[in-house]
Amino acid sequence: MPTVPVQTPGGSYDVVIEPGALASLGERARELVPHAQAAVINDESIEYTHGLAAARSIRDAGYDATIAIMPQGESNKTLGTFRDLCEVLLNARIERGAPVFAIGGGITGDVAGFVASAYLRGVPFINCPTTLLSMVDASVGGKTGVNVPQGKNLLGAFWQPSLVLIDPQTLTTLPPRELRAGLAECVKHGMIRDPDLFAWIEAHADKLLALDEPAMVELLERNVRIKAAVVEADEREAGVRAHLNFGHTFAHAIEAGTNYTVFKHGEAVSLGMVAATHLAVALDMCDASVLDRLVALLDKLEQPTQAPLPSPIALVDVMRLDKKVKGGKMRLVLPTRIGEVIIRDDAGYAAIVDAWGELKPPA
Amino acid sequence: MPTVPVQTPGGSYDVVIEPGALASLGERARELVPHAQAAVINDESIEYTHGLAAARSIRDAGYDATIAIMPQGESNKTLGTFRDLCEVLLNARIERGAPVFAIGGGITGDVAGFVASAYLRGVPFINCPTTLLSMVDASVGGKTGVNVPQGKNLLGAFWQPSLVLIDPQTLTTLPPRELRAGLAECVKHGMIRDPDLFAWIEAHADKLLALDEPAMVELLERNVRIKAAVVEADEREAGVRAHLNFGHTFAHAIEAGTNYTVFKHGEAVSLGMVAATHLAVALDMCDASVLDRLVALLDKLEQPTQAPLPSPIALVDVMRLDKKVKGGKMRLVLPTRIGEVIIRDDAGYAAIVDAWGELKPPA
Repeated sequence: MPTVPVQTPGGSYDVVIEPGALASLGERARELVPHAQAAVINDESIEYTHGLAAARSIRDAGYDATIAIMPQGESNKTLGTFRDLCEVLLNARIERGAPVFAIGGGITGDVAGFVASAYLRGVPFINCPTTLLSMVDASVGGKTGVNVPQGKNLLGAFWQPSLVLIDPQTLTTLPPRELRAGLAECVKHGMIRDPDLFAWIEAHADKLLALDEPAMVELLERNVRIKAAVVEADEREAGVRAHLNFGHTFAHAIEAGTNYTVFKHGEAVSLGMVAATHLAVALDMCDASVLDRLVALLDKLEQPTQAPLPSPIALVDVMRLDKKVKGGKMRLVLPTRIGEVIIRDDAGYAAIVDAWGELKPPA
Repeated sequence: MPTVPVQTPGGSYDVVIEPGALASLGERARELVPHAQAAVINDESIEYTHGLAAARSIRDAGYDATIAIMPQGESNKTLGTFRDLCEVLLNARIERGAPVFAIGGGITGDVAGFVASAYLRGVPFINCPTTLLSMVDASVGGKTGVNVPQGKNLLGAFWQPSLVLIDPQTLTTLPPRELRAGLAECVKHGMIRDPDLFAWIEAHADKLLALDEPAMVELLERNVRIKAAVVEADEREAGVRAHLNFGHTFAHAIEAGTNYTVFKHGEAVSLGMVAATHLAVALDMCDASVLDRLVALLDKLEQPTQAPLPSPIALVDVMRLDKKVKGGKMRLVLPTRIGEVIIRDDAGYAAIVDAWGELKPPA
């Protein structure tokens, strides 16, 4: 089964991809982070399907495990939840060096990782993503954090895990809408640097939507390898890591502008990629056929490519709050062809407003 | 004027020690961290004596500076204050890469450094300590954090500054009690690895208490060099950095046990060093003459060596909450002679209780 090594200045670790791997979580962790205690932060939504099994595996491996529940949903990805989780660890007197496990989606991993980074100024972190989105994206790279009223992920830390364990069988209990939203992020990886992956997803879309296990393992491995390569080249997002933000400056504005309640993150990224590609076409940076192929694949994966949204002007205003704004200029990741993106900070206000306008469904 | 370079895996930077240096803060920062914006976190207690001058220097150097006030006192070293300060930066739309300055004592530096570590997952940090304690201790080493009801500094990050600027002239406005408490931390440096420094402080105690400038500059340089050497050898406190905790496991219990209201940190460290040395003598680890010389020097510096405290049993219970507890065992830093300490985790409960008992003033 595939193991993808990740090496960054902040730490080196393996991403293990293996159906059924959750049952061996405790044993594998023990080899890397031996300690008498552990904290397990379970995503509320998978507490009964996978969380308890994971906790059992951790306890069977000899850890005295304290379990904390991460409440579901983006609205709980807050400094208040961070504090509540820290409180559980403090009251259990979890000691320096004890691992924090996250079992759940990207929100759980982000908040639990931030807790691991800050608790006693940092303890080991082991991440078991249970959604497709978090498996191919958030689980690799060490970004942790919480949202604030001013925007997403504006407080956090870079904190590399000691191990990432991906069990594709956990996807069988994932709501189909979440699965499809995760596929949008895989399309993004193809768009930014792997035309072969893009074509492979086009060819295997049906198998992926049906959760065919070999296809899913291959998808996971290919995407984790891309994410790992980008993160290794640029842990702190000084350069090429910014390419991963393709579609995301738009997506964050969509999510903030709709109060995080209308779209899944992957769906917002789908819309964001389409807007960014419209902009690239308008700027004569890429051929209209790129847009056509992108929209066709996202349609096939049942991802939104048009949607009723707040006004373009309001959305541009939200975009300006993004972390990636530099010297007041919006740095946008825009495609030149399938498999290549570049960063532009010179797209004019009107062009960005127009790109938003392209997402408006026909009346 | 002395400049002490500090090199750690987490970052390299200079500690500049220079009377009057605060006036050149903005210029010096600009060379290292050029950016259009800056955030300045001013300690409430020095806002009018030094904070405004520092902010002026930062503005004169071309930064668009947003000023936040850090409320005074250990009781404000909380996650709530951390959130409030982040809020100021968020509302000012401080961008990635903009420096956060801290002007003030150790509490301000610790909280501002934690803000710098977490804001947008990390921005550059420039620290201008204005108390003796923070100059010789907290400003070097990258430890940041806040207190929680369960104990001191239990949440935070390792986040190295880009520059530490020490202006000894700021000590002229420091309350004399704070100055003396800072001298206790210098005695600690002598105790853990520099018998010459210990003897030098014995010889120069009067000059130091009178704030003689050349003596103070020499004291600062010698102490910063010791702290830097320890931190360079062991950024994350895996080994020798723990020696800096000499007296601190006891001191933290004193501070927590008296609700942080009775003793200055340095005063608690003074008592803690005496308790630890009593314990070392009782364990036959060091000669009673070490205790005598330590107590005599602390007396000369008007630091407490005995005090009315909560019961020894209550204090031992608080000690057990310390970050440094490992496998349930208290790891204590104990002296073998002046200039050398070792870590022991086998001191018995009764011996520790007895050591606390030695701090009780005669009836």
